[in-house]
Amino acid sequence: MIPIPESKHPRIIIIGGGFAGVKLVKKLKNLPVQIVLFDRNNYHTFQPLLYQVATAGLEPDSIADPLRKQLEPVKNFFFRMAEVYSVDGASNMIHTEIGVLDYDYLVIATGSRTNFFGNESIMQHAFALKQIPQALDLRSHILQNFEAATITEDPLEKKSRMNIVIVGGGPTGVEVAGALGELKRSILPKDYPELDFSKMSIILLEGSSSLLGGMSDFASEKALKYLKKFHVDVYLDTLVKSYDGHSALLSNGEEINTHTVVWAAGVKGNYPDGLKESSLERDRIVVDHYNRVAEYDNIFAIGDIAMMKSEGYENGHPMLAPVAIQQGNHMAMNLKRLLKGEELKPFKYFDKGSMATVGRNKAVVDLPGKSSLGGFPAWVIWMFVHLISIIGFRNKLIVFLNWVWNYFTYDKGTRLIIRKFIPKKLRKTEPELT
Amino acid sequence: MIPIPESKHPRIIIIGGGFAGVKLVKKLKNLPVQIVLFDRNNYHTFQPLLYQVATAGLEPDSIADPLRKQLEPVKNFFFRMAEVYSVDGASNMIHTEIGVLDYDYLVIATGSRTNFFGNESIMQHAFALKQIPQALDLRSHILQNFEAATITEDPLEKKSRMNIVIVGGGPTGVEVAGALGELKRSILPKDYPELDFSKMSIILLEGSSSLLGGMSDFASEKALKYLKKFHVDVYLDTLVKSYDGHSALLSNGEEINTHTVVWAAGVKGNYPDGLKESSLERDRIVVDHYNRVAEYDNIFAIGDIAMMKSEGYENGHPMLAPVAIQQGNHMAMNLKRLLKGEELKPFKYFDKGSMATVGRNKAVVDLPGKSSLGGFPAWVIWMFVHLISIIGFRNKLIVFLNWVWNYFTYDKGTRLIIRKFIPKKLRKTEPELT
Repeated sequence: MIPIPESKHPRIIIIGGGFAGVKLVKKLKNLPVQIVLFDRNNYHTFQPLLYQVATAGLEPDSIADPLRKQLEPVKNFFFRMAEVYSVDGASNMIHTEIGVLDYDYLVIATGSRTNFFGNESIMQHAFALKQIPQALDLRSHILQNFEAATITEDPLEKKSRMNIVIVGGGPTGVEVAGALGELKRSILPKDYPELDFSKMSIILLEGSSSLLGGMSDFASEKALKYLKKFHVDVYLDTLVKSYDGHSALLSNGEEINTHTVVWAAGVKGNYPDGLKESSLERDRIVVDHYNRVAEYDNIFAIGDIAMMKSEGYENGHPMLAPVAIQQGNHMAMNLKRLLKGEELKPFKYFDKGSMATVGRNKAVVDLPGKSSLGGFPAWVIWMFVHLISIIGFRNKLIVFLNWVWNYFTYDKGTRLIIRKFIPKKLRKTEPELT
Repeated sequence: MIPIPESKHPRIIIIGGGFAGVKLVKKLKNLPVQIVLFDRNNYHTFQPLLYQVATAGLEPDSIADPLRKQLEPVKNFFFRMAEVYSVDGASNMIHTEIGVLDYDYLVIATGSRTNFFGNESIMQHAFALKQIPQALDLRSHILQNFEAATITEDPLEKKSRMNIVIVGGGPTGVEVAGALGELKRSILPKDYPELDFSKMSIILLEGSSSLLGGMSDFASEKALKYLKKFHVDVYLDTLVKSYDGHSALLSNGEEINTHTVVWAAGVKGNYPDGLKESSLERDRIVVDHYNRVAEYDNIFAIGDIAMMKSEGYENGHPMLAPVAIQQGNHMAMNLKRLLKGEELKPFKYFDKGSMATVGRNKAVVDLPGKSSLGGFPAWVIWMFVHLISIIGFRNKLIVFLNWVWNYFTYDKGTRLIIRKFIPKKLRKTEPELT
């Protein structure tokens, strides 16, 4: 049994310190409960800006916030840094890497992870972008390749080390591609005057016929236009079939020589073992309108991992931060009602719109309703919304300063290979990042 | 042969992008020479603040500056990220991990590395603090131990995971100990309310009878007094004999249970192979008053690695940043003279004083001449001198903001375990950091 002090209050275990979990803990602050939060990291990750860490725009520490510090004001709160392996609903226990613990209520907020759809070759060689170490690996890998490009005399290898393929035309794919385009246009040619950047291709692959699938036609078309300005080649209706670390084979038969493939083509729920088969659907946990997991009384799920079918969201809500934050909030309210013996209230998602940025002065925003924005106004809105969402004043300030710096100097300060990237096949001792 | 474009100008190879190497390259800016800089990292490390990265006060990216960016204004400049293995003075060649390259002039500026004085057990288990990954390892290791302390029920293990021993009472040892004392006093008890911090010991060991050996008696005594205020126990005239990762055996027979030993007790020169025996002394390269390596005509050495015997410095200059910067400057001037066929000028070290900080409002400064300062004025001078010395305006700004933040909030923002520390014996694939 994991040592947690005795309490006369019911124990709520929360798994995952992402947007949903952190919001929930904060909102439970003054309740007569004991809260135990599990996360495999000791920090919260602000995932929407991971791509800026990967592309040398931000330092990793500015998008991470220590969970213990963040949640210090919450009384009767305990944090345990550990991976949760499985849930035993029959005996109200969870099994973790540091032992077992029993709960009165369990809230699963484990988010999502990269979905490679079973393609082994891609899983082995492509870069995912869901965690800070992955972003740092990608940053190091790209820079290592440019260093290597300066010392090879083989023109094919030179090109292959400079080329970058991004798979998936959703917000992450578009944002990574745009940021790389900016690097190519303004920064890398100054760092590597020896290299011919007209030979470098940044290619964004999208399987469907338009970018930013969940957004308006206006947004898709603008994004496509903006990406061209940033020297990104967009291939629509194109998939990658296989990738061996040097050459990517596309569904149109084309072969692209590249040392770097970024995989942003899908995520799936990241749930612990032990839940009943009938509680799961499409790699997510099925919940009712109160976020209660199907087949259980005292287990809930919130955020990306939860699939709540409702009007307009027949396959569950989009796996986005705003849904997670709203469900965290709502869950706290419902737990409060539950403890008082009151009836629970159904969750209703308030869609505030969606957005994606391509680069300097270029973004797209779909407002609630039918209107959309592009260009500079959209870019300012995008920055403002992200800045206010970053947890912690210090991080807000550092990110803001970096952005101001990048904007006026056309520079990105963190082109650092702090730990050289070691390919997965050589990495025997590091935990697999999935 | 490493591919470097042909040039009609003589080629100067510089090994090492530390204080000496960077200063030299910058000063060679407008000379009719081709410059090739080698470093195993793509960034310059501001070593004097490494201890603040290790103790969660600063993000690593704010004390690292990309060499390519830094040296962009220098024309006819080439950077190669590679370790230099050896020097072949007879054929004017260096051998590196990416191939060989010939030079007209060679400047060795490879600095120093940790000296464990052959103690295998300490080398295996203690933490050194000369490189950014080492600082990040130490930060992660300390935080991982606090996480582990919360889940052990064995009181001895709990104490051992909280205890920290620092070996070496020079500036680095004093600074690390002070910063850890601050963490213990103001920050960790808030993060870990479950732990009893009266059980945590921070012990600084110094083999001689006073701290800060190179500084004034005033400074030594003040540092000792300040450290006590920060809850650091200082053991003078005490060495560590062995350490197995859990228990440190001291020269006074005492045994201290600790999972963390920081080794700040010595450095030694870090020179490439191949130099003549007679060019070396006490792990440094012997140079004349023009920084020319003994026994060679066109090989020079500057910074920590260079041992120039001169009046008042019979065993060479202290291995400090100001010496390196002054030698970098002077070397540029002498290379200029050499190219013009003029006589070289001897180097003379201008001692601007020395300083060390213990923590908030507490530092010691020995000014040139006989006067010394302590307390708040010394602390302000220390901060000012370090801020203006950090390379790059963006880094200056971010460090300054972090310090202001830490000062007013009594908080340190970067208590992050971004990559879990893996003990050396389990690390098979990562390069050994020495």
